[in-house]
Amino acid sequence: MPDTRLATAPGPNDAIRHSLATRFQKARARTAELVAPLGVEDLMVQSLPEGAPAKWHLAHTTWFFETHVLMAADPGYRPFDPAFRQLFAALDDRFGAHLPAPTLRLLSRPTASEVMRYRDHVNGTILHLLDRIDDAGMADLAERIELGLVHERRHQERLLSEIKHAFWCNPLRPAYEPLPPAAAQPETPQQWIDVPGGMVEIGRDETAPGRDHEGPRHQVLLRPYQLAGRPVTCGEYLAFIEDGGYAKPKYWLGDGWEAARAVDWQAPLYWERREGGWQVFTLYGMRPLDPAEPVCHVSWYEADAFARWAGKRLPEEAEWEAVAAQKECLGNLLGNGHRQPRPHVCRGTDGPWQMYGDVWEWTRSPFMPYPGYRHPDGVDEALTGRFMANRMVVRGGSCVTPFDYATPTTRHFLRPQARTAFTGIRLAEDV
Amino acid sequence: MPDTRLATAPGPNDAIRHSLATRFQKARARTAELVAPLGVEDLMVQSLPEGAPAKWHLAHTTWFFETHVLMAADPGYRPFDPAFRQLFAALDDRFGAHLPAPTLRLLSRPTASEVMRYRDHVNGTILHLLDRIDDAGMADLAERIELGLVHERRHQERLLSEIKHAFWCNPLRPAYEPLPPAAAQPETPQQWIDVPGGMVEIGRDETAPGRDHEGPRHQVLLRPYQLAGRPVTCGEYLAFIEDGGYAKPKYWLGDGWEAARAVDWQAPLYWERREGGWQVFTLYGMRPLDPAEPVCHVSWYEADAFARWAGKRLPEEAEWEAVAAQKECLGNLLGNGHRQPRPHVCRGTDGPWQMYGDVWEWTRSPFMPYPGYRHPDGVDEALTGRFMANRMVVRGGSCVTPFDYATPTTRHFLRPQARTAFTGIRLAEDV
Amino acid sequence: MPDTRLATAPGPNDAIRHSLATRFQKARARTAELVAPLGVEDLMVQSLPEGAPAKWHLAHTTWFFETHVLMAADPGYRPFDPAFRQLFAALDDRFGAHLPAPTLRLLSRPTASEVMRYRDHVNGTILHLLDRIDDAGMADLAERIELGLVHERRHQERLLSEIKHAFWCNPLRPAYEPLPPAAAQPETPQQWIDVPGGMVEIGRDETAPGRDHEGPRHQVLLRPYQLAGRPVTCGEYLAFIEDGGYAKPKYWLGDGWEAARAVDWQAPLYWERREGGWQVFTLYGMRPLDPAEPVCHVSWYEADAFARWAGKRLPEEAEWEAVAAQKECLGNLLGNGHRQPRPHVCRGTDGPWQMYGDVWEWTRSPFMPYPGYRHPDGVDEALTGRFMANRMVVRGGSCVTPFDYATPTTRHFLRPQARTAFTGIRLAEDV
Amino acid sequence: MPDTRLATAPGPNDAIRHSLATRFQKARARTAELVAPLGVEDLMVQSLPEGAPAKWHLAHTTWFFETHVLMAADPGYRPFDPAFRQLFAALDDRFGAHLPAPTLRLLSRPTASEVMRYRDHVNGTILHLLDRIDDAGMADLAERIELGLVHERRHQERLLSEIKHAFWCNPLRPAYEPLPPAAAQPETPQQWIDVPGGMVEIGRDETAPGRDHEGPRHQVLLRPYQLAGRPVTCGEYLAFIEDGGYAKPKYWLGDGWEAARAVDWQAPLYWERREGGWQVFTLYGMRPLDPAEPVCHVSWYEADAFARWAGKRLPEEAEWEAVAAQKECLGNLLGNGHRQPRPHVCRGTDGPWQMYGDVWEWTRSPFMPYPGYRHPDGVDEALTGRFMANRMVVRGGSCVTPFDYATPTTRHFLRPQARTAFTGIRLAEDV
Repeated sequence: MPDTRLATAPGPNDAIRHSLATRFQKARARTAELVAPLGVEDLMVQSLPEGAPAKWHLAHTTWFFETHVLMAADPGYRPFDPAFRQLFAALDDRFGAHLPAPTLRLLSRPTASEVMRYRDHVNGTILHLLDRIDDAGMADLAERIELGLVHERRHQERLLSEIKHAFWCNPLRPAYEPLPPAAAQPETPQQWIDVPGGMVEIGRDETAPGRDHEGPRHQVLLRPYQLAGRPVTCGEYLAFIEDGGYAKPKYWLGDGWEAARAVDWQAPLYWERREGGWQVFTLYGMRPLDPAEPVCHVSWYEADAFARWAGKRLPEEAEWEAVAAQKECLGNLLGNGHRQPRPHVCRGTDGPWQMYGDVWEWTRSPFMPYPGYRHPDGVDEALTGRFMANRMVVRGGSCVTPFDYATPTTRHFLRPQARTAFTGIRLAEDV
Repeated sequence: MPDTRLATAPGPNDAIRHSLATRFQKARARTAELVAPLGVEDLMVQSLPEGAPAKWHLAHTTWFFETHVLMAADPGYRPFDPAFRQLFAALDDRFGAHLPAPTLRLLSRPTASEVMRYRDHVNGTILHLLDRIDDAGMADLAERIELGLVHERRHQERLLSEIKHAFWCNPLRPAYEPLPPAAAQPETPQQWIDVPGGMVEIGRDETAPGRDHEGPRHQVLLRPYQLAGRPVTCGEYLAFIEDGGYAKPKYWLGDGWEAARAVDWQAPLYWERREGGWQVFTLYGMRPLDPAEPVCHVSWYEADAFARWAGKRLPEEAEWEAVAAQKECLGNLLGNGHRQPRPHVCRGTDGPWQMYGDVWEWTRSPFMPYPGYRHPDGVDEALTGRFMANRMVVRGGSCVTPFDYATPTTRHFLRPQARTAFTGIRLAEDV
Repeated sequence: MPDTRLATAPGPNDAIRHSLATRFQKARARTAELVAPLGVEDLMVQSLPEGAPAKWHLAHTTWFFETHVLMAADPGYRPFDPAFRQLFAALDDRFGAHLPAPTLRLLSRPTASEVMRYRDHVNGTILHLLDRIDDAGMADLAERIELGLVHERRHQERLLSEIKHAFWCNPLRPAYEPLPPAAAQPETPQQWIDVPGGMVEIGRDETAPGRDHEGPRHQVLLRPYQLAGRPVTCGEYLAFIEDGGYAKPKYWLGDGWEAARAVDWQAPLYWERREGGWQVFTLYGMRPLDPAEPVCHVSWYEADAFARWAGKRLPEEAEWEAVAAQKECLGNLLGNGHRQPRPHVCRGTDGPWQMYGDVWEWTRSPFMPYPGYRHPDGVDEALTGRFMANRMVVRGGSCVTPFDYATPTTRHFLRPQARTAFTGIRLAEDV
Repeated sequence: MPDTRLATAPGPNDAIRHSLATRFQKARARTAELVAPLGVEDLMVQSLPEGAPAKWHLAHTTWFFETHVLMAADPGYRPFDPAFRQLFAALDDRFGAHLPAPTLRLLSRPTASEVMRYRDHVNGTILHLLDRIDDAGMADLAERIELGLVHERRHQERLLSEIKHAFWCNPLRPAYEPLPPAAAQPETPQQWIDVPGGMVEIGRDETAPGRDHEGPRHQVLLRPYQLAGRPVTCGEYLAFIEDGGYAKPKYWLGDGWEAARAVDWQAPLYWERREGGWQVFTLYGMRPLDPAEPVCHVSWYEADAFARWAGKRLPEEAEWEAVAAQKECLGNLLGNGHRQPRPHVCRGTDGPWQMYGDVWEWTRSPFMPYPGYRHPDGVDEALTGRFMANRMVVRGGSCVTPFDYATPTTRHFLRPQARTAFTGIRLAEDV
């Protein structure tokens, strides 16, 4: 449910058309590729109450384009199937009739093949519309399509996160796809980046692409700090576990302790202690724990408790962004990498660290409006702003985040108890 | 989870073998036929917390034969797939490892086709075993297979009841199968059967087939009573609704009133008030309400309230059985009829009434042991006896009850708030 | 919420007046005596969601007389305090405005002394009315007062049961009153009463006092049986515990097993395993377990499991009544005894057993209408009949049951999971 | 559960002793005064699951002094009653054995008079200890007593907030005390304070009294803003209600909308729409709504929605503090005023506004650590820091906040759904 503002570089509309059509086709095709390893029965499963089956994600993203692009921009458009208007609508009272959440997983009809026909129909109609729109309508249309692309990307990440959880609930622990051959990556020793602090500018410039809550750009005063060169590894996290970290309330915030006790957390989600040692469930099935990998699927409460145990703290989002703004945006993201966090490596020329990919990095910043932010009034009114309570900011993108979604200013947000997203920990420290 | 005792007629084992093999094949084939109208996605849906997807019913009934026949009677048998031992086990702590109930609907793997291979494998192995068993082992084997057949039949009924509910939860209200052409049946006027009372014998004779809780046969003292010649119709029930029956506490037992208010019952399950009048969801999709049809999908609380409103009462199970014992066992049951209750017709020569089929008929008898009943100690220990609390007895079988399951002594039982089984109302009255 | 029908022996109204006035005064005074050991703070506590503070019981029983006697029989009566009409009304939708259940324990106002004034006022007004009513109005008035007396008695028992539970929740485990000096009673060896069965008559004759659901009197066919001469003792029950009775599902009904596991029952309510052995919380505070005492505060599920473990069963209520009808009605009841079950003793001349007092005895009879029972239509319409679902019949009265409430035909009823009433076990067996 | 660090000005210990003894006696006496209008039955009521009866507050604050002062500072101290060590302990796993929360309201024993003796005993012993402590032990003792005083003040506020709620749950709506005669105060027109922004310093200096999470003092960059001269009034809030504010999701954050719908908020807590207009429940009983009074008992979600409706926003806590730091700390607080918010008046010489008292003012700042804050390691380890998740900061103190508790740097914190504290709204705006 993200929103965005299109930043259209001045130029001939044909180039925009062409570029947009290409990006649209690629994004839509990528979603279809993500379900290629799944059978139609797999498309039906939903294990998280707040989640959805993959089939619904396929249909809902299409509903979004149909609603916010075709029906909004083309008065003559007739819905593919009037029933789909409600079946696949966003579960949000603000947008009219929609299914009750528990019904999503009961939709054996329409079948997966009908849903794929729905996708094809909407894809074709949008490309056709893009082809024939006049220059006057182009800006609005482009903005709407861009919005749909951001939405599509968010659901790609959710789809993979949710199918992972559903497969993990199956005692057979099926793999989403086979493990690709890959050279082992050695563990990188932790290093610390010294940052002098002072006034820094963060946030999206209004001419840059991105979601509106990522701006306005503004100044922040930072005190001198150190930021870890790479995320916390499974090996380091294991030391916390073995030191009794989950049993000592002194490391935990009150709400965190309560959450941990309520469902008896003893390790990150997907870790299983078996004979012969720890195993971790991945999109490639059960794998032995690799101590060099970034720890993943920890809640903010666990990240915060780990940091306290380690004598450090989580970074402010501004501290993270101040460093990331100077790095090339590379990393293990969806579209160019592995579907499980990998040990971080040196990639940049200017330093030993990597700020993007593998795991979303918890910050200690609650998700609140930047100074001067105003909830927009348009179609996408408050689409993300309305989540500005009880969430914490994560930064950097994970291995299932579409690569074109992760930038220095990208602000994502999760409830502090969330563990199903691919979330990890980067430490910080006062100097 | 029923149990039974085999009543082996004296005779050559070959005849028993042959008859048993035939009945086994028929029963197993009927289950497969029941899922023939469904797609693999349909086999995944489960809308009732205490229910299961159709795929699981297919596998679990097979697990039952594998466990209680093959593994019990053939020491050399190797399970089809060791993982299935747990995946499809009964959800009952008494029988060892099993899945948590909420996991059933998440089993996209094994696929439906793997489950059908599992069925074929177990079917073939049982027929082979039946063929080669020696006379010494025959009695035990036959008893085990009979038990499995009772179990299979129970799951056939559950499968249809549960797929109906799941389809009803889908806003598309898909039909399980198309409505067959059928002549309309006129409404039968209600008539009353006078029964003088006195000492009657009820219950299963120990030499007769059936489940153990249906015996021992014993005497019961009945006072003179009248029993309705046919079940209450939708038209009669509608009069109760229109008289405000659901809003007047004086007709309701305390627990019934609470249950009705908790989920705001306003009509039987599957009734929907739409523009143009009441519609009813059936296995044939949404249909206009037929006032002549027996009312169906009412809880015991509603049946009891309706009876009080009508100035009558529900029958004791002995009152029902005393009448049914004199009637031929015919009716609209699974295997010979329509998959929706139909208006009752005169079939017998001695009276204008039909005691079986269409709807299970609520009695006012709690499900308790008959005098002299003892919980058995064998494999099927207390399989039904353990439900002897908080359930009410229903009699007669419904349109989705396998026809060979409904006899004068068949005792089925449901919680008083249950509405998903095909339950209706036959009235009684003191004289 | 009981109801009754007054059985007025023919005779001069003055005698009735006098007798009724005496019984009314005694019953009301006894309630006041029951709270004499309590401080005003004690009158505020309520530990059971379905319970009420003692202060509310004091006021509600008064509300009952004000509503069903004074306001019904005297058109000129003006309520003591109009606000009390709602504050102390029965929590039943059928009778109009009442408090939500969780509010009862919040009524610090009116104070206890105001409530006592309310009692005095209503008591005096009723005695005055009884004195001046004409003969025409006498029958109705007498019936209303009798009904109120039954109601008062039920609340006396509830008051003691609930204050016991509330005190047990206090870590100080305060005693309701000091233990009176009493000679130890030796354990009575179990003996069995042989009953030949046959046709017996049970139930209240319509000319006898009692509640309407206790009739009509009717014939029941019993098979030969044995009934235990005394209830199961704590020592016998301890053997069940020590044999692992709470851990073996084979003794338990399905619902019972679930109830036991849900709250981890390991022993009867109020038993505590401490250093030095089992202790039991009583109205006299914590006491060492006395193996000779009848076991008390067991649910029906536990009684049923115990019986199965012992190779016996619970009696039918008719089996119990057939024996009790021949015994003098004596026993340890409220008004003449100890406020904790005591070892049973021989009291009758015709046998070694005692059928009343100490503990309510679970039967295996669900609480259902007797043949021919009709829900009444009057002021007390369905007052007990409406509980005729999901309850089991208990017989005999306990040490906190007013002695004038326990007769051979008295039918009380409790949910099968109930443990706060003083419930015990008398075994039966088929012959 | 606050903590503090004593800032002991250099000086003779005798003066410290004397001043501390005086403040200790006053604070303890004030708590006793707060319960003076209550009867012993009132001391028993608890309507909020997370609350406690007044009797428990009286005892628990005493437990705190006994535990953290007497037992910590005097090895020879013997507890007043060993059972009280657990009965009145903080409900926090970190501090050892304590009661389960639902048990607090069941403690009819010890009685209120025993609890008052407990208070007297501990008070006397502390004063005696203070008198005889040597200079070496003085600093530690003083710090412990200061900590207890902060704790006492927090419970004074909770006690009044909770008794208000409990009385409101009683249909009699009793008043805590009679309304004192007071001149009506006219409504103050809203005025706006212009603040230029820039670098400001906020937070407690380490030499100043207060709780540790209120420091360290640090610089914050503010943009130019306007702050309202007085809180939002009931009249202004009523306009929001009458404009359908509670029914329009566009004003609400997602979590706020869900919270509002879950319990159907239609107005602030304690507002009741009656014939003749809105009434408000106060510690003086039900009163007609005064449009000039500050609106009170609104959640953060409501405050946030109101601000959005008004086209404004809530202030950052630094914005609030920057203004408050220049004002004299006066206002309607506990100890010097009215126990219901009153219309704000001009009190300062330099401006038309009042920053303290009447209502806690919601800010849009989540309760998070200030830069450089470290969780302490001592007895009071993380006592407030551990609440640093899912709370919002409130500023300024309310009419039931002890007057010596409200300073420019005082940071209090509440969950965004909280409504039982006396919380109101001061608006802000970007320039």
